Amino acid sequence: MNVEFINPFLSSLINVLSTMAQTQLKPGKPRIKTDEIACGDVSGLIGMVGPQTRGSFSITFDEELALTIMERMLGERPDSIDEEVTDMVGEITNMVTGGAKNLLGEKGFDFDMATPIVVSGKGHTITHKSQGKKIIMPFSSDAGNANIEVSFDKL
Amino acid sequence: MNVEFINPFLSSLINVLSTMAQTQLKPGKPRIKTDEIACGDVSGLIGMVGPQTRGSFSITFDEELALTIMERMLGERPDSIDEEVTDMVGEITNMVTGGAKNLLGEKGFDFDMATPIVVSGKGHTITHKSQGKKIIMPFSSDAGNANIEVSFDKL
Repeated sequence: MNVEFINPFLSSLINVLSTMAQTQLKPGKPRIKTDEIACGDVSGLIGMVGPQTRGSFSITFDEELALTIMERMLGERPDSIDEEVTDMVGEITNMVTGGAKNLLGEKGFDFDMATPIVVSGKGHTITHKSQGKKIIMPFSSDAGNANIEVSFDKL
Repeated sequence: MNVEFINPFLSSLINVLSTMAQTQLKPGKPRIKTDEIACGDVSGLIGMVGPQTRGSFSITFDEELALTIMERMLGERPDSIDEEVTDMVGEITNMVTGGAKNLLGEKGFDFDMATPIVVSGKGHTITHKSQGKKIIMPFSSDAGNANIEVSFDKL
């Protein structure tokens, strides 16, 4: 898997969060994940299936960032990661993957998306179990950190 | 979504764990999940995409059960949920979904599987964000509890 495959997810995420929540994410350096573990408090995950390959995408937020995004979108800040927050994380997961799907489709790389799943739990970790390389991309912002991770089989 | 859709996952899981780890799981009562939250320590998740629908499947284990399965499969008990355990949970997720895919395919219900993702973290919770009903099925055993959850859009 080429690091270039992360870029459509990266630009889609930056676009979604600046549009929906007036939050500017600053991308860090993408890296091939080996035994590094990304840790967060609420994550959205989605499976992807296409004719050339299959894979998975995840986005993980610090609690602080997830709550701030909710506040900026809805004008009210939840006390904790409740159902409204997990709905929002599921929706962001769908939107970011959908945006990346459009960008990758223009390059002839097609996939269909499964439905998103949201995980919440203080300091959980996520491991993508595809056979391909795992690329992780950290983001920082004024309200906390996030990271995305993408993995496809056989690229 | 009909509760009948859970049965292929149920029988596939029972079959996989009795074959691979000599562990008999006793199914509880399946239920439509509303705001009930299933909680566990290590989970395998996978997306499914088919011509009729798309959805997601998850299986969540207590740490005790996950470590016991490893012990029965490999003869050695890990101290904690390490990479070998998450690999095993990813593999079980693939095998259970693959078994259910075969059973459902015989009934004319086809889907392709994405690649599995494994989550670890004490007491995390999982929410499937499809538009369909979420069906949860608890299991008990001599070594701890597990539960599976399945959700498809538009059934």
